[in-house]
Amino acid sequence: MSEYSVSPDGIKYRIPTREELKAELASISEIVEDQRAMGREIVTVMGLGFVGAVMAAVVADAKDSPYFVLGYQRPSKRSYWKIPYINSGKPPVSAEDPEIPEIFRRTVLEKKTLMATGCEESLGLADIIVVDIQLDAAKPVFGKAETGYVELDAFKAGCRTIGKYMRKDALVLVETTVPPGTCERIVLPLLKEEREKRGITKPPHLAHSYERVMPGRKYVSSIRDFWRTWAGIDRESTELARRFLSRVITYPLYEAENTTASEVAKVLENSYRAVNIAFIYDWTLRAEEIGIDLWKVLPGIRVRPTHSNIMNPGLGVGGYCLTKDSVLANWAFMEIFGCSGGVPYTVEAININDKMPLHTADLVADALKESGRGIKGSTVAVLGASYLADIGDTRHSPSEILIRRLREMGAEIRVHDPYVKVWPEFAQQDEDEFSLAKQFRNQDDLKNLRVEQDLDKVVKDADAIVFAVRHNDYLQLEPKEVLRINGGTPAIVDAFNIVEDNKIIEYLKNRCAVRGVGKGHIKRLKQLV
Amino acid sequence: MSEYSVSPDGIKYRIPTREELKAELASISEIVEDQRAMGREIVTVMGLGFVGAVMAAVVADAKDSPYFVLGYQRPSKRSYWKIPYINSGKPPVSAEDPEIPEIFRRTVLEKKTLMATGCEESLGLADIIVVDIQLDAAKPVFGKAETGYVELDAFKAGCRTIGKYMRKDALVLVETTVPPGTCERIVLPLLKEEREKRGITKPPHLAHSYERVMPGRKYVSSIRDFWRTWAGIDRESTELARRFLSRVITYPLYEAENTTASEVAKVLENSYRAVNIAFIYDWTLRAEEIGIDLWKVLPGIRVRPTHSNIMNPGLGVGGYCLTKDSVLANWAFMEIFGCSGGVPYTVEAININDKMPLHTADLVADALKESGRGIKGSTVAVLGASYLADIGDTRHSPSEILIRRLREMGAEIRVHDPYVKVWPEFAQQDEDEFSLAKQFRNQDDLKNLRVEQDLDKVVKDADAIVFAVRHNDYLQLEPKEVLRINGGTPAIVDAFNIVEDNKIIEYLKNRCAVRGVGKGHIKRLKQLV
Repeated sequence: MSEYSVSPDGIKYRIPTREELKAELASISEIVEDQRAMGREIVTVMGLGFVGAVMAAVVADAKDSPYFVLGYQRPSKRSYWKIPYINSGKPPVSAEDPEIPEIFRRTVLEKKTLMATGCEESLGLADIIVVDIQLDAAKPVFGKAETGYVELDAFKAGCRTIGKYMRKDALVLVETTVPPGTCERIVLPLLKEEREKRGITKPPHLAHSYERVMPGRKYVSSIRDFWRTWAGIDRESTELARRFLSRVITYPLYEAENTTASEVAKVLENSYRAVNIAFIYDWTLRAEEIGIDLWKVLPGIRVRPTHSNIMNPGLGVGGYCLTKDSVLANWAFMEIFGCSGGVPYTVEAININDKMPLHTADLVADALKESGRGIKGSTVAVLGASYLADIGDTRHSPSEILIRRLREMGAEIRVHDPYVKVWPEFAQQDEDEFSLAKQFRNQDDLKNLRVEQDLDKVVKDADAIVFAVRHNDYLQLEPKEVLRINGGTPAIVDAFNIVEDNKIIEYLKNRCAVRGVGKGHIKRLKQLV
Repeated sequence: MSEYSVSPDGIKYRIPTREELKAELASISEIVEDQRAMGREIVTVMGLGFVGAVMAAVVADAKDSPYFVLGYQRPSKRSYWKIPYINSGKPPVSAEDPEIPEIFRRTVLEKKTLMATGCEESLGLADIIVVDIQLDAAKPVFGKAETGYVELDAFKAGCRTIGKYMRKDALVLVETTVPPGTCERIVLPLLKEEREKRGITKPPHLAHSYERVMPGRKYVSSIRDFWRTWAGIDRESTELARRFLSRVITYPLYEAENTTASEVAKVLENSYRAVNIAFIYDWTLRAEEIGIDLWKVLPGIRVRPTHSNIMNPGLGVGGYCLTKDSVLANWAFMEIFGCSGGVPYTVEAININDKMPLHTADLVADALKESGRGIKGSTVAVLGASYLADIGDTRHSPSEILIRRLREMGAEIRVHDPYVKVWPEFAQQDEDEFSLAKQFRNQDDLKNLRVEQDLDKVVKDADAIVFAVRHNDYLQLEPKEVLRINGGTPAIVDAFNIVEDNKIIEYLKNRCAVRGVGKGHIKRLKQLV
């Protein structure tokens, strides 16, 4: 029986059999021979996810086209569709960056320097294998990131596959954010073992370099036009990786002393952001209690060059990196290196950040109470599902935690987001015992949670409206309009300084209860109204 | 019997009696009248400490000389000497900034816009009273900053003195870093109370603005040429303070919504630094264990504009602000505002930072052990007493904690610092039950600790040498020279990346045990030697 893989826009692709894929090798080899004849080296990017897909296109698009790129993806139900997608010149990622469709069209159809395949044997054709296999950290207990761990099985299997096919002198460049020590202690032994089975005793070339991708309007550029830290497992690997990166990346490279240092740099750098956000949370709660607006305090601090990156309050922290990288590190220090401890102060920041949306849920309950309504049975309109403003990415979005908590408190939930059509975290609700759904009560009906694009439908008759993401659309909303659509006096909760003081005053004048994260001054405004 | 006040260079000044001081009022009034006739307003700066003394000079030096400045100092044994000092044109602070002697000479002797006095009645002559009274946070238990509190008595007494004498329409501008809420809830009621005793029912003009002083070569400039946040207790106070600050400060002003917000901004801003330092400590310990050099990881992260201020590892954190400002806040939120909590994540950073020097002490013990010596009875040469590189300021220096711990462990201590002649924290060892000395054992003989300027004397025959401050002098030191002076194979411990890799290798070749904070790569270098 055939298996199928369905793309996000609903196209169904039959997944080829192992034999069919293997048979592709001959035709790919021919293409590769032609490309070599044109003086190009062959780069395989393994794993066509959020980073890998775009990295493949960036390499294929490099100045003077020194590389022909094979995007390799395991032909799974979840991801096989990406292969025919790319090969037809379409991006396998949706993004707000106009360069995304353009770079796939250009490299696949015009330059013909990029093709995708599910044929693992094709790994044997590459001079350089860039590893972008997804690697997740599990946080089994909500709010206890110290119990987090890393599931390395799929990553290890990928390494074995590489070792099984890679050319003797190929460079393996790990770009995945990995637990520190992974290249030296996990990838290298696996590659050696597989190569030895093939009679290759020479150690492989291996290096690590991490990307600093940002979703949004500069998605492609954030991979290509930004500083890179890198290091090789030995002198030759370091040099091979430098040569490759300097042709693909337009920004300066920084050489780390070894792959472990490069791996640490990535997780440390993201942990720094996470800690700086957690720090602000301390002050957010107090600002609310003592009656000042923290959002107005911070710009006066941010003028200092040494303090220019001080973070804002908000709903919480989402995305793929800031929520997990500290866990990778904490786990690796103890489990890979057997250190006497992890990074406890850093991990505490992850816990603070993960639990932060619960505070906004409390503000909703508090505002509803002031409005004479209980949260149980009230309809709460959550405006914003994504984890960042003006993008449609819901990975680890704090809105998810907010919604789960509100549901647990008994609220009926509606969600609006102009950028998000499906919310996989709810739709594909994980059944494992550590899933977030299992850690909150009353989550069953959230499986059917729909993200609406029609704001009116969400706002109408809602008892509370939560501004949960700083989407541009929400900044434009006038209270008059919101109240007209709603038709009543909804409680207003602002997690991201979306409702400015003049608008707060208008809501207050209309007898709405108003709350804002870090906005203690609302009490004062209320006395003035 | 007369009392005397002795200046740091040993000059003994008789402290005038209360009557003598009061009698000064007539002559000061005459001077002030002349100054008013020249179109100048009168500014009194109250408290001639680290900030106040220089602030007084900066105001007196303002462009077009709009102000005549009276520096007021309580005529205490500890501080009276500052008055005759200033009046002779000499700075009452020692500093590496060449502008310091110049600005006092210029304003006192040349422009004649600055004079100092101990006559409290003179407060009644001022149009603007700038409050720079020292305000300390006590941390009664080492490493438990959550038990910290603020001793407000002296500050309150100062406020009463102002209320007793201030002109009806004078502006009181608090520049002291205070617990949030102080202006509204402490200063204002005290001023009102004292004014009412004098029959003045009109509320006083009151504002807050905080400086961002930095010791070192740009001490004066750091007060004058830097952004300022400010706010008044009402519209008129805000405007009066704006007018004053814009004449004295050369950088843009940022208006906070009220004095509490301005007070919060200052302590939040310094807490941010403290947290960022504590964060790095997590990673410092792990870098040492997993064998990488954190000092080489960080520059590759610092290239990102969003991460340019990431901190370095080190011995610990010292100085007057970063060690206490979070405690002011934590205490104020609970005690002044009755909040449901303080700022626990922030306070934990203070604890981490306060205890950080204990780690360097452990490295010393470890290096001595490798050298076949026990720490008990070993002589440890600590190079650096100040809390920052290339300044002579020992306030809350982490070197103090390091030394107390090493002494507790049984080491004999020698200290060198090219900038520090006396170390008041040891010399004037506090006898109260919470003093640091009381919290460590074997501290009695540390009262006699001398800070040497002769490096040879300190290094000769020492069993261990600790590079504790990143003074330029130490960066220059060649291992050959150090070993020649020492005459043996001392253990070398580097807290601030002072000993570069080539020097580490030279020490290792000479069979010295070497350790460095954040420098796990030394293990690897050792294997290579």
